[in-house]
Amino acid sequence: MHHPDLQIMIRQANVANAKVSLRPYEGVKLLGVERGDSDNYVFINLHIDESAQAGELQFDVSYQHATDVLSYPLLTRHPQSAARQGFSTKDIIYLINPDRFANGNPDNDSVKGLYEQARPDFKGGRHGGDLQGIIARLDYIKDMGFTQLWLTPVRENNMSEYSYHGYAMTDFYKIDPRMGSNEQYRMFTQAAASRGIGVIMDMVLNHSGLNHWWVKDKPTRDWLNFGGEFSGTSHARQTIQDPHASEFDKKQFNDGWFVPTMPDLNQRQPLLATYLIQNAIWWVEYANLSGIRVDTYSYSDKAFLAKWTERVMNEYPNFNIVGEEWSTNPATVSYWQRGKVNQDGYISYLPSVMDFSLQEALVKALNEEESWNTGWVRVYQSIANDFLYPDTNNLLIFLDNHDMSRIFTELGQDVEKTQLAMTLLLTTRGIPQIYYGSEVLLDNTGSHDHGDIRIDFPGGFEGHKQDAVSGTGLSKEQHAMQRHVRTLAQLRKKYSALSDGELVHFSPYDGVYSYIRRDKSHSILVLLNKNQTSTTINMTRYQEVLQGVKTAQDLLNNVKTNVSESMEIPKMGSKVLLLKHD
Amino acid sequence: MHHPDLQIMIRQANVANAKVSLRPYEGVKLLGVERGDSDNYVFINLHIDESAQAGELQFDVSYQHATDVLSYPLLTRHPQSAARQGFSTKDIIYLINPDRFANGNPDNDSVKGLYEQARPDFKGGRHGGDLQGIIARLDYIKDMGFTQLWLTPVRENNMSEYSYHGYAMTDFYKIDPRMGSNEQYRMFTQAAASRGIGVIMDMVLNHSGLNHWWVKDKPTRDWLNFGGEFSGTSHARQTIQDPHASEFDKKQFNDGWFVPTMPDLNQRQPLLATYLIQNAIWWVEYANLSGIRVDTYSYSDKAFLAKWTERVMNEYPNFNIVGEEWSTNPATVSYWQRGKVNQDGYISYLPSVMDFSLQEALVKALNEEESWNTGWVRVYQSIANDFLYPDTNNLLIFLDNHDMSRIFTELGQDVEKTQLAMTLLLTTRGIPQIYYGSEVLLDNTGSHDHGDIRIDFPGGFEGHKQDAVSGTGLSKEQHAMQRHVRTLAQLRKKYSALSDGELVHFSPYDGVYSYIRRDKSHSILVLLNKNQTSTTINMTRYQEVLQGVKTAQDLLNNVKTNVSESMEIPKMGSKVLLLKHD
Repeated sequence: MHHPDLQIMIRQANVANAKVSLRPYEGVKLLGVERGDSDNYVFINLHIDESAQAGELQFDVSYQHATDVLSYPLLTRHPQSAARQGFSTKDIIYLINPDRFANGNPDNDSVKGLYEQARPDFKGGRHGGDLQGIIARLDYIKDMGFTQLWLTPVRENNMSEYSYHGYAMTDFYKIDPRMGSNEQYRMFTQAAASRGIGVIMDMVLNHSGLNHWWVKDKPTRDWLNFGGEFSGTSHARQTIQDPHASEFDKKQFNDGWFVPTMPDLNQRQPLLATYLIQNAIWWVEYANLSGIRVDTYSYSDKAFLAKWTERVMNEYPNFNIVGEEWSTNPATVSYWQRGKVNQDGYISYLPSVMDFSLQEALVKALNEEESWNTGWVRVYQSIANDFLYPDTNNLLIFLDNHDMSRIFTELGQDVEKTQLAMTLLLTTRGIPQIYYGSEVLLDNTGSHDHGDIRIDFPGGFEGHKQDAVSGTGLSKEQHAMQRHVRTLAQLRKKYSALSDGELVHFSPYDGVYSYIRRDKSHSILVLLNKNQTSTTINMTRYQEVLQGVKTAQDLLNNVKTNVSESMEIPKMGSKVLLLKHD
Repeated sequence: MHHPDLQIMIRQANVANAKVSLRPYEGVKLLGVERGDSDNYVFINLHIDESAQAGELQFDVSYQHATDVLSYPLLTRHPQSAARQGFSTKDIIYLINPDRFANGNPDNDSVKGLYEQARPDFKGGRHGGDLQGIIARLDYIKDMGFTQLWLTPVRENNMSEYSYHGYAMTDFYKIDPRMGSNEQYRMFTQAAASRGIGVIMDMVLNHSGLNHWWVKDKPTRDWLNFGGEFSGTSHARQTIQDPHASEFDKKQFNDGWFVPTMPDLNQRQPLLATYLIQNAIWWVEYANLSGIRVDTYSYSDKAFLAKWTERVMNEYPNFNIVGEEWSTNPATVSYWQRGKVNQDGYISYLPSVMDFSLQEALVKALNEEESWNTGWVRVYQSIANDFLYPDTNNLLIFLDNHDMSRIFTELGQDVEKTQLAMTLLLTTRGIPQIYYGSEVLLDNTGSHDHGDIRIDFPGGFEGHKQDAVSGTGLSKEQHAMQRHVRTLAQLRKKYSALSDGELVHFSPYDGVYSYIRRDKSHSILVLLNKNQTSTTINMTRYQEVLQGVKTAQDLLNNVKTNVSESMEIPKMGSKVLLLKHD
């Protein structure tokens, strides 16, 4: 590894009172042993030289009357590990709630020894989805054109209720048995990789589940914020940047807990910080990840966040990490992106952030009447704010996700609007993410319950009449949407301008928002019409991008079309035009 | 002057065909003569050495058959001119529409030779207000505690209609005769200065009036944008920063005209740029200005704006200039403030910008119910965005101005709300600006007509039953508001923390927004309660600012009060508490 030091935590009754030594091992040096405030932990600091070979490290842990021998495997690394390529604009990310996607192995729906058992009929219960269910649908995912999978957390959540969402982890090193096993997770990433699909792990640095072993027996007194007692976060993320913020408010936001069942971790504690850093790197290596998604990013200590991301990115310079900063204020969000020159001098190493501003703008745009400050102009202005980001390509863009109402619901179950939204998502700048099932118009109309948003994927569970994979039982509209997504994904793959090209957009005019994506090899003009009537547009405003081009290939309909003077765009329709330079 | 060169435009029939020479003058050198595209202009470039003494420069302008002798006065400069202090947080700015403030000289209401005559009964007409009317009310202005006057433009607007607003200038060097004269403008600034009041001139760089002489006879073909033909601006100011903006949109915003009667100036034309720079400096010197307000700032060419502000600020390093960038997006506004590190490398020299975000937030806050994302939190979040500004003290803050509905109207004619708004305005960070008459609750309820917003100041015109200066005819509420403003202005003057102190604010809680202003000498805690019932607040959250202080002086009511445990704030009321460190 780039970083040669390793810290091993030993958790064992009374271990703090033992003497720990490392048996001689070529290239590995014991730097020292640290102790916390509990008798049941020690932390062993090792230096691993480049020359060290794979094998078992052995530690003698000597108590007054006995000695334990503990071993730790040192594994061979994949030679290309450090050079791994993270997810990028070339990808489309498919976001899955594994408990709600597909039940591949009914035997692990309930697991003895874990508090919560399966309860498929309860919105907030575990429905039985698992890794096996996803593996069985990888061909579908590939066929749709999705090239990255972001799964909400699949690590152990041994909580008594609502554990299906995965964000209350009780073991950072273990896949939840109801999802599968560590070994199966590794098989899953291999099976995905063999289809050209990468896996992004959802990591939580801010909190753990209340039933995590370090809650009852805290390694140090300062392991948890607010002394281990619940005090709710204010969610006032702006206190991070606000030059006028009171210490009171800063503490309440950063140290406050999400909910009483998720104790807030104090990452200022160096032993905990190291634990979280090493845990992330371990998973990248173990499961061959192509990216990390960090939950509730700004809620963690910001000095720690810089260190955590820097350490991970130092190990994998071409890797990608996206942080969730749920704010529609791009000034707040861009603060966290690597390369941003911040007024307060804060230096971030996080490559990617999520574009909540565009998501909100797009929903409003499609639901509002056009005017000087409503409708498409919202999207135009949101994207105009890109000047705040040091790397606009590395914005994760989306129509919906597991924490918000589905796009079909947000757009009033209007298929045409949803198709327009998808066209924009898959042709504008950034890295598109699609929430599982939104490609077949899943919706949660009438409810904001997370259980309704994270609805079972059609065909993923016993007794479903619909199957999104085979197409059985899908309506005409669902089929059409699936086709639309697939077509756009293919275009995005075929035409590099759509994924990596420069974006030049035009002020919305007469209900039409338009932009060009272009690179050295080609230019594609996208026209989005949200009028209820077909709209004829004068092409003279596009002179700078047409540059004399008179014909174009209409890629959605695969016909040649004249673009020299005017062009008709069907009502609530879009044109994706490959300009013919000849 | 810091800058030793001077360019003189001579406008005279056929002058481009004449030979121009400078008669010998110690310390002044003729660098050359430039010509444009019209025969009727020449531009003489001079170098003025520091050694040059005051006197008359004389130019021989030789035509084929005759020679004109033209003279140009070189004046002695006030020794302290370059060191002048611009308006700052120590000030309160009073914004006046001179045509609507007070008619001091009825003889100049209509002036022969100018197109538009007085028509006091017409909302969009000239009402007869003038400089004399303001001079006569300087004692009132001083008594209210206002220390700077921003007058909307008073230079010649010889337009056939709607000329009262002053933004369609037809001579950049001449006060409109209906307002007074150049000499009287100078008397006005002197009379103000003798009362400790500075004057901020409203300058328009973006356009002139259609009847300006340079429209009919353009010095160069490129003097006006869009070839001198009307094409409306898109107002899409975000194109300036937007990395994806099309050339089409950039041009339409920047070069587009405001209205057909205001041709858009092409400041990329160097002769015009020099004209505008010299004109600004000339007025600062001539009228002893303490500041400039620049209209429609971002609509002008941005390279020119940098040059213009740099030149002015180089001459007067302690001066102040505020630019109007009417956007509620602080990322857009802060782009223009001096010291901002912009992603695109743009360097601005503009010291001050206007805080439209806070204005909008405050109106919404007071009109909305409290919730996690409505009410006071709007103000809190707006101010939290201060991290975007390199100099948050140099933000001009306001409740209303000449282009927007009056605050009393916006707050539904609610006196208590308006008082709360005023308390915030005069105690938070920035440079407060008050629109004439809002101190006596002028309003425009039921209308957004600019004529109703720019309503006649009570007592400023013949036949008024109310007089804001003497108090005659004012209602109890109007008197109370006037007193409230006066009291706050006095506090702001007395306590440096209120004008220059650090601001630390607290997340709104239970309908109360609160903050402290503090400097080395004292700390003042401000509590604003927008509940319809009195509210008792627990003082423990203020520990970091109280630092053990137990008593405070309630400055609005001048009573001692206990702040050690809890405090009651009256319904819709405010507390301004001087903490007693003893």
